[in-house]
Amino acid sequence: MSVRVPTFDEIHDAAARIAPHAMVTPVLRHASLDALAGAELHFKCENLQRGGAFKFRGACNAVWSLTEDEARCGVVTHSSGNHGNALALAAATRGMAAHVVVPEGAVRAKLEAIEQAGATLHRCAATQAAREAAAAEVQRTTGAVMVHPYADTRVMAGQGTVVLELLRQSGTLDAIITPVGGGGLLSGCAIAAHGLAPEIKMYGAEPSGAADAAQSLAQGARIEQFVPNTVCDGLRALIGESNLLALREHRVEVITVSDEETVAAMKWLWRTLKLTVEVSSATVFAAILRQREHFAGRRVGVVLTGGNVDLDALPW
Amino acid sequence: MSVRVPTFDEIHDAAARIAPHAMVTPVLRHASLDALAGAELHFKCENLQRGGAFKFRGACNAVWSLTEDEARCGVVTHSSGNHGNALALAAATRGMAAHVVVPEGAVRAKLEAIEQAGATLHRCAATQAAREAAAAEVQRTTGAVMVHPYADTRVMAGQGTVVLELLRQSGTLDAIITPVGGGGLLSGCAIAAHGLAPEIKMYGAEPSGAADAAQSLAQGARIEQFVPNTVCDGLRALIGESNLLALREHRVEVITVSDEETVAAMKWLWRTLKLTVEVSSATVFAAILRQREHFAGRRVGVVLTGGNVDLDALPW
Repeated sequence: MSVRVPTFDEIHDAAARIAPHAMVTPVLRHASLDALAGAELHFKCENLQRGGAFKFRGACNAVWSLTEDEARCGVVTHSSGNHGNALALAAATRGMAAHVVVPEGAVRAKLEAIEQAGATLHRCAATQAAREAAAAEVQRTTGAVMVHPYADTRVMAGQGTVVLELLRQSGTLDAIITPVGGGGLLSGCAIAAHGLAPEIKMYGAEPSGAADAAQSLAQGARIEQFVPNTVCDGLRALIGESNLLALREHRVEVITVSDEETVAAMKWLWRTLKLTVEVSSATVFAAILRQREHFAGRRVGVVLTGGNVDLDALPW
Repeated sequence: MSVRVPTFDEIHDAAARIAPHAMVTPVLRHASLDALAGAELHFKCENLQRGGAFKFRGACNAVWSLTEDEARCGVVTHSSGNHGNALALAAATRGMAAHVVVPEGAVRAKLEAIEQAGATLHRCAATQAAREAAAAEVQRTTGAVMVHPYADTRVMAGQGTVVLELLRQSGTLDAIITPVGGGGLLSGCAIAAHGLAPEIKMYGAEPSGAADAAQSLAQGARIEQFVPNTVCDGLRALIGESNLLALREHRVEVITVSDEETVAAMKWLWRTLKLTVEVSSATVFAAILRQREHFAGRRVGVVLTGGNVDLDALPW
């Protein structure tokens, strides 16, 4: 798969394209979390985004980038949940069909939301290969346009709008951290951040049980075989080729955290910020607590990516 | 206890007094909750207030209303949790001591927060009489000023600032609903709302296991003996005399809801708004769903009062 990364201008265009549909999410601060981290934390609450995750931005930009002709047969994707839901919601804003291939093990609450949004579910095994094969099959039989969850220029551009908004809301930041799974968010955010302020240091937070991005950066080439083992259901995808290139180009540092640290961080965020953030989102706060030296005394943008949680199966 | 209700001007003064310390909390909307209720719901997120509850407003107004002389020996109150925490935090903003009498059965997370804020805890039995006796004893031995959780003019004025803010954020509303326990919030909000727009219909939401406000309104006199039995730990207090008078004067209607309805509503709010609201807060949404006819097609302000939850003891 060869996909280019978006330009800064494409991220600006995406912001204009999604503005009628996406929410401007609030940025929250909390004195006791600042004290805990020894830093000034600006939490960008994408769990309050439409569909409960930042994914709506990328999906919405992709859907509204299509020509009338391309839009006719709908869109298809594979997703552990949030991107599928986002694509279903985005397709609905344009009256289009959406097909979502979902791997086994996806969070039930996310699947229900996708169906409620009016999309058709197609189930497959939990491997990357099975996801891509099933999506290709749907594409072949329906004529739907593939909107990949992260290795898609339009999607990356949409996710990058998170940082345009955050910097407008919080002013100058020294560093920004987002979770990293496939890398759509992190690459889009890095391009957006450095388009505005090249001195911002970008970080990714990755579960140690799905640390293919960290390992790929360390060994200088993309790891293509990796069986993820993490409670962070939203971060099990392998990083995309173009996403990895963007991370390297923007000198993004990836911090790995254990699931135990992430679940503890999730509980802190719930208890203190009064937000339901999903476990994948909590990696960022776990990373800040684990590597305090990177963040101490700095103004840090912290992207809370989603809030779609199965309330009957909390991880503590 | 004879306490007068605040004037509209006193609520305005309170807003100015607490502005340096309190948060302007966001108002959230959600299409699917609107659809569920058939109304336009404007959720005022006081769970995001300092200390995790609206109570900081009233406590802060009381603390900063004291003269230097009055402030010298600190403040005392009795509280199932949120008011105690709020008073502890508010006292800290003025460098004052705070004593909090806590009834048995209070939520552990709330007690920990009170101690963290630097207050001294005094335990007592869970009855209204025991609370008041223990607080009087602390007052006698320390010289601290009593700041009652709801039967206090300064406290009611502080709580009323919720509505000044909400109406500034949301524009005209047809109705506003808040939970009712002791009635400090609801009475303050009714005075604030009608000071700005006399046509706003005010509602209270009360657990059927603590429906002393509803019964007091129905029988025309305050019920003084009532043993509450509800999962809503923040709404077990009996309504205050002056609070009840204000409810009557402002033609406030109280809707009672079962704990089962409230817990279901709480889960809806968590799942959809991505906010951790405590069970007492969810009574308002339960009331809207139970008596849809009052709210259908209207613009409704919905005060989510707090988010201090014991995450290891969720009620579902």
